[in-house]
Amino acid sequence: MSAPLAITMGDASGIGPEIVLRRFCEGGLGDDVVVYGDASILRHGASLLGLDVDWARLPIVDLALLTAADHRPGQLDAASGAAARAYVERATRDALAGTVAGIVTMPMNKEATQLSDPAFVGHTELIAGLCGVQKVTMMLTTRLPGGPLAVTHVSTHVSLATAIERVRRERVLDVIHLTNDVLGRFLDRPRIAVCGLNPHAGEHGLFGGEDIEHIAPAIAAAVAEGIDASGPHPADTVFYQAVHRGRYDAIVCMYHDQGHGPMKLLAFDTGVNVTLGLPIVRTSVDHGTAFDIAWKGEAFTDSLQHALDYARMLVGP
Amino acid sequence: MSAPLAITMGDASGIGPEIVLRRFCEGGLGDDVVVYGDASILRHGASLLGLDVDWARLPIVDLALLTAADHRPGQLDAASGAAARAYVERATRDALAGTVAGIVTMPMNKEATQLSDPAFVGHTELIAGLCGVQKVTMMLTTRLPGGPLAVTHVSTHVSLATAIERVRRERVLDVIHLTNDVLGRFLDRPRIAVCGLNPHAGEHGLFGGEDIEHIAPAIAAAVAEGIDASGPHPADTVFYQAVHRGRYDAIVCMYHDQGHGPMKLLAFDTGVNVTLGLPIVRTSVDHGTAFDIAWKGEAFTDSLQHALDYARMLVGP
Repeated sequence: MSAPLAITMGDASGIGPEIVLRRFCEGGLGDDVVVYGDASILRHGASLLGLDVDWARLPIVDLALLTAADHRPGQLDAASGAAARAYVERATRDALAGTVAGIVTMPMNKEATQLSDPAFVGHTELIAGLCGVQKVTMMLTTRLPGGPLAVTHVSTHVSLATAIERVRRERVLDVIHLTNDVLGRFLDRPRIAVCGLNPHAGEHGLFGGEDIEHIAPAIAAAVAEGIDASGPHPADTVFYQAVHRGRYDAIVCMYHDQGHGPMKLLAFDTGVNVTLGLPIVRTSVDHGTAFDIAWKGEAFTDSLQHALDYARMLVGP
Repeated sequence: MSAPLAITMGDASGIGPEIVLRRFCEGGLGDDVVVYGDASILRHGASLLGLDVDWARLPIVDLALLTAADHRPGQLDAASGAAARAYVERATRDALAGTVAGIVTMPMNKEATQLSDPAFVGHTELIAGLCGVQKVTMMLTTRLPGGPLAVTHVSTHVSLATAIERVRRERVLDVIHLTNDVLGRFLDRPRIAVCGLNPHAGEHGLFGGEDIEHIAPAIAAAVAEGIDASGPHPADTVFYQAVHRGRYDAIVCMYHDQGHGPMKLLAFDTGVNVTLGLPIVRTSVDHGTAFDIAWKGEAFTDSLQHALDYARMLVGP
């Protein structure tokens, strides 16, 4: 039997562990997973939700960092934030060691984690650091009626002014490569649309030169390598072409909102984040801790299923 | 009887006049319109499409600039480009004089018009110049299952780097005012969401300062005036909130693709453009000349209906 997938349960105050439990009780986790977290929180949470959990069938790597008394649904909490960080650290190390096949992460709360670790930047940066890599990128993917669509980003959590500076031939080509590599695991020759930076992709240089100077040469280099890349496409029509006409498998975006704006509109609760460029498989639900609705039985649980499915697809048979 | 609405038929080579004819034959134009264009092109086009047009019921202001021999479906043509410009000039002057109540424009082809007028920038700039105003903005609006949604822009056809420079308190407040004024014609107190510029609206200044320095003060000033404005909202979630939760009537966007990306995904063929800040009513279909499918009977005709409906709503009873 191959190694299982690790699910890190996320911040105990948020919807992460709640979704894990509810999805498990709905029969949706599968037999190839192990939950990294705190058993005390899961048991206390199950009682809060009135869930009848078959604990013998739910493998848990219990870090035993929190007790039931530490469970503060919906509350920003230093201990919960620090524990959420620890689940991810342990799972990442186990994935690097090969005892788990990959990791699927439920949301951390950045502010909560920063209470104990002021230098904490984010979930992805933590994992990349533990893996010793820097050249990573975020892929957001969702299932649509016409098929799955993946969106990758040249930059994400930087100012728009900095994002413009990141649009350079080498980085754009790196992201095309990362996109082609990940989709190439299960598609023959992924069709990759590359967005322009400026409106109408610059309209032949009329509205900014980055599209011609930096993006077009990266696309040309990718095409010369045999990659099915095209563009630069106007960012306001390429999503329509991908979603409603099925023309592309992936869209390479130049900045955070260029990809996230359309994608969150399509799949607010069901998107999956995949970190590309890591030596391990890592997928994540594309939502936060949602403290306002946590442990009330309201959160959608489909997101975890999608993140698990995508991780399985990447891990392979 | 009040003045009719002018429909400018657009570039003769494109889908504009085709849509006018086909919609008319479907009974969809209404009795309060007059078409500004070339009767020869309309008659020739009707024969191409095999349409049986009741010409007596279709009022035309015939500029007689083109003949049937000039009709080049799908071809970039200097005479057609110049004529399309002339229809708009005439209709704008008539709207300023009050002989028409407003104008609904079908698409021009910028390249075609530039063949005779190299200084031609765009449809909206042409109309604004004729009206002698500079402080205009583009509103994109669409009907959605949950109600109409309008999106306005602090800047449109400029590079992204220039767009960042345009995000200044005074301009943002101007666009909030223009948005509030136009929606206030038919809504009691429009709910206006204002986007941030940076990802996550800058995350408290972590990813860029414009959200705090320029956008928040503009919103505060608008709120102090009694306008129902809120934000700065992260641009990647505000559309979901507006579309799927019905929380807003309008979204003020900081740059072209921030608004156009999500909106074109929602309403590629049915969006309506409204130019705000003009002394006349002007709406436009939100698509181009589509030379590739022109005069083949394939173009959707709903766009014209939406643009007419919106113009009627703005003109009032």
